[in-house]
Amino acid sequence: MFSSTQNTIIAVATPLGVGAIAMIRVSGKDAFSITQKIWKSKKNLLTQVPNTLLVGTIIDQENTPIDEVVLSIFHAPHSFTGDNTIEISCHASPYIVQKILTLLVENGAKLAQAGEFTRRAYLNGRVDLAQAEAIADVIASENENAHKIAFQQMRGGFSKQIKKMREDFIKLAGLLELELDFAEEDVEFANRGEIQKQVHQLSQNISDLANSYQLGKVLKNGFPVAIVGKPNAGKSTLLNALLAEDKAIVSPIAGTTRDSIEDETTIKGIKFRFVDTAGLRQTDDIVENIGIARTKEKMQASALILYLFDVSEFTPDVLLKNLLEIEQYNVPILLVANKIDIADKNAIHYFENFEEKYQKQIIFLSAHTQHNLENLQNKLADYVQMQPLHQNQTIITNTRHYACLQDTLKALEQVKKSLDQKFSTEMVATDMREVIYQLGTITGEITNNDLLEFIFTKFCIGK
Amino acid sequence: MFSSTQNTIIAVATPLGVGAIAMIRVSGKDAFSITQKIWKSKKNLLTQVPNTLLVGTIIDQENTPIDEVVLSIFHAPHSFTGDNTIEISCHASPYIVQKILTLLVENGAKLAQAGEFTRRAYLNGRVDLAQAEAIADVIASENENAHKIAFQQMRGGFSKQIKKMREDFIKLAGLLELELDFAEEDVEFANRGEIQKQVHQLSQNISDLANSYQLGKVLKNGFPVAIVGKPNAGKSTLLNALLAEDKAIVSPIAGTTRDSIEDETTIKGIKFRFVDTAGLRQTDDIVENIGIARTKEKMQASALILYLFDVSEFTPDVLLKNLLEIEQYNVPILLVANKIDIADKNAIHYFENFEEKYQKQIIFLSAHTQHNLENLQNKLADYVQMQPLHQNQTIITNTRHYACLQDTLKALEQVKKSLDQKFSTEMVATDMREVIYQLGTITGEITNNDLLEFIFTKFCIGK
Repeated sequence: MFSSTQNTIIAVATPLGVGAIAMIRVSGKDAFSITQKIWKSKKNLLTQVPNTLLVGTIIDQENTPIDEVVLSIFHAPHSFTGDNTIEISCHASPYIVQKILTLLVENGAKLAQAGEFTRRAYLNGRVDLAQAEAIADVIASENENAHKIAFQQMRGGFSKQIKKMREDFIKLAGLLELELDFAEEDVEFANRGEIQKQVHQLSQNISDLANSYQLGKVLKNGFPVAIVGKPNAGKSTLLNALLAEDKAIVSPIAGTTRDSIEDETTIKGIKFRFVDTAGLRQTDDIVENIGIARTKEKMQASALILYLFDVSEFTPDVLLKNLLEIEQYNVPILLVANKIDIADKNAIHYFENFEEKYQKQIIFLSAHTQHNLENLQNKLADYVQMQPLHQNQTIITNTRHYACLQDTLKALEQVKKSLDQKFSTEMVATDMREVIYQLGTITGEITNNDLLEFIFTKFCIGK
Repeated sequence: MFSSTQNTIIAVATPLGVGAIAMIRVSGKDAFSITQKIWKSKKNLLTQVPNTLLVGTIIDQENTPIDEVVLSIFHAPHSFTGDNTIEISCHASPYIVQKILTLLVENGAKLAQAGEFTRRAYLNGRVDLAQAEAIADVIASENENAHKIAFQQMRGGFSKQIKKMREDFIKLAGLLELELDFAEEDVEFANRGEIQKQVHQLSQNISDLANSYQLGKVLKNGFPVAIVGKPNAGKSTLLNALLAEDKAIVSPIAGTTRDSIEDETTIKGIKFRFVDTAGLRQTDDIVENIGIARTKEKMQASALILYLFDVSEFTPDVLLKNLLEIEQYNVPILLVANKIDIADKNAIHYFENFEEKYQKQIIFLSAHTQHNLENLQNKLADYVQMQPLHQNQTIITNTRHYACLQDTLKALEQVKKSLDQKFSTEMVATDMREVIYQLGTITGEITNNDLLEFIFTKFCIGK
């Protein structure tokens, strides 16, 4: 449970471990007076100008100096939480950090729960709920794309969109509510056709946002790519080359890989999750057959299939036949001609013709020597960036937001139905209120305590 | 190698890991102009008042926002290093931290070596060498005592003492040097008796400081206490009780412990290093005999022996006999009567009489039930605090300082000898210069590059 917002809360905001500096955050109405009690300096903390730095000493009850520190002074409402805040930068000694926390508690501060600072920021109106959730994502972001999406959300891009939609919808609903006030006079302030048009447009927008969730999830967790091909096409060698490590066991014996081996790597700021699969062939080996069945599952779950073949052994006819088999999974396919280091020129030439004829681009490379590996990496990055939803569109990554959007869509469907069936004004108004309610839960204009607890306890302490 | 002091250096000053906030330090003559290049805010960083905080956005070359950060602005010479310094507090995302460091490097900053910030502080005269070394100790301090000593040194207590001694000695030597200028006139500005008196006094002071090294080391690394006694006296049970964990294997079979088991724990802010030893007895077991030999070594190396005996089985006569054996190691002994939970009252009474007769305090406890364990813990803490050198005296903990003090003592011996043997003024003056030189190396008034490299590379990055 979070403590009362009347309390002054404290926590170490920097990671624990060995370093030069640690930062302890003190926030709440008594932040200044509590810190003043363990503070010794020529300068009075209580009369200090906001947004300034103070150098001085933290002392204990016996006036023993504990550390020389720098204080950052933020006055309400111009702080992260919106409350009076002091950030104490001390030496990152475990002893000192613990001692300062203890002294602050002894003088009336409470240790903060995970996410409690951000929760205060939300309660004080410094950020809305979706922004608050994005802060956790910004901190957790490990690559350029994840960061970009989270940062945009933290800045409120997504929230603004939702708020705008909600406000527009409130106006529309307002007209309907007005009709209710004048129910006896049988007037129509809100044109039903106009409402239908707007409900349709909103459904479209909400639906686009909800659809972006799949891509958002993919960009956050890694774009899933299945590496598929006949036994001994060089799939494991390619996986190792892409990961720049020896993850998969490689041998000249066909059928070496039985389990699906998965790992992620970042290419041009995009996180990919590659799955090396068992080679597709008829076999009596039971374990290998389980592997092949799993390969088929993995292909269906992936966003892109890399179909790898040995250019020194394959013919365009065989390739075509195999492609027909793979295409049934309805996943985009990228063709990769491997082993150009040992294939003769004629073989490669055949496939170049194939490329023209079927208008399917083939990437020629050697996974073994890593020749042209970069071409594949560029192609992969380009492919993700070409995704329709990826260009300056809002992408959502948060499961809670996705669920809220789905609920909004359901409510909109109900509005449509009521309008189509010419239900009473009162019933339509009730359905519209549900849409407004659902949109409000995303940014936190509609909220309850359980939800807040659920959201903020997923944060790290000190944020 | 450290880079030129003309460079602007950067590093993450906070520990690496998961947390809310990370801090990147930028220090050097171009700290402001380099940071300005990746900075976007209504407020101009270059015209900002010193010791203030600025909120704004870090951007990349394409104006893409990377993070919303707080800058702390310090103007030379009023910063930790003495150079212009900006501390960037950003979100502790690995991606963001890496990106900001990269942007700073692309704009001309250099990644700092371990200790490079403190080295700058030294070169700019913000701290002397002994203080700089103490900063590393402050950060590493894990308990109250280690912190107290390091903090006092960081504040310059030890340096002041050394500098005062050196200045006094320089004055004295100056008179002698003056005599050299008037060599032909055979005058004596410096009374030889006075010099002898001062040399003697200085030797005494330096020697006290050097002696504090043993205690300093003990307080830093843990006060070594050997737990000694007959087999089955309950030594391992006592060790486990003191450590509050099951470190040693305990069994009712005498001779269970063969290896010496060591571990440390902090009692009332003092770090203790307890050694559980093999029980002292005649045995044919070869392994056990090696253990007993090792016990004797451990006793000699310890600062205090806890002699443990089973009060339910021992008699005062046996205790006396055993004590005579232990006393030959010349290490202070604390007597602990164990197993009061199973001993009868008479047995305990015998030993209370013994206590009076031999004026040796005995602590009665049960390691098994932990009854009276606190008495022992209090006694141990009191014992360390009663150490003559522990009360407000300067304690040195740094091996380099100890070596310098030893060299100073050697040089002082040489001065004494030259004076005793009435050597020429010139020879005495040369010997005195050596004393001044040696004292100067402690605080860094005398120094060389190798020494600086040696000292500062032991720091953590970002300090």
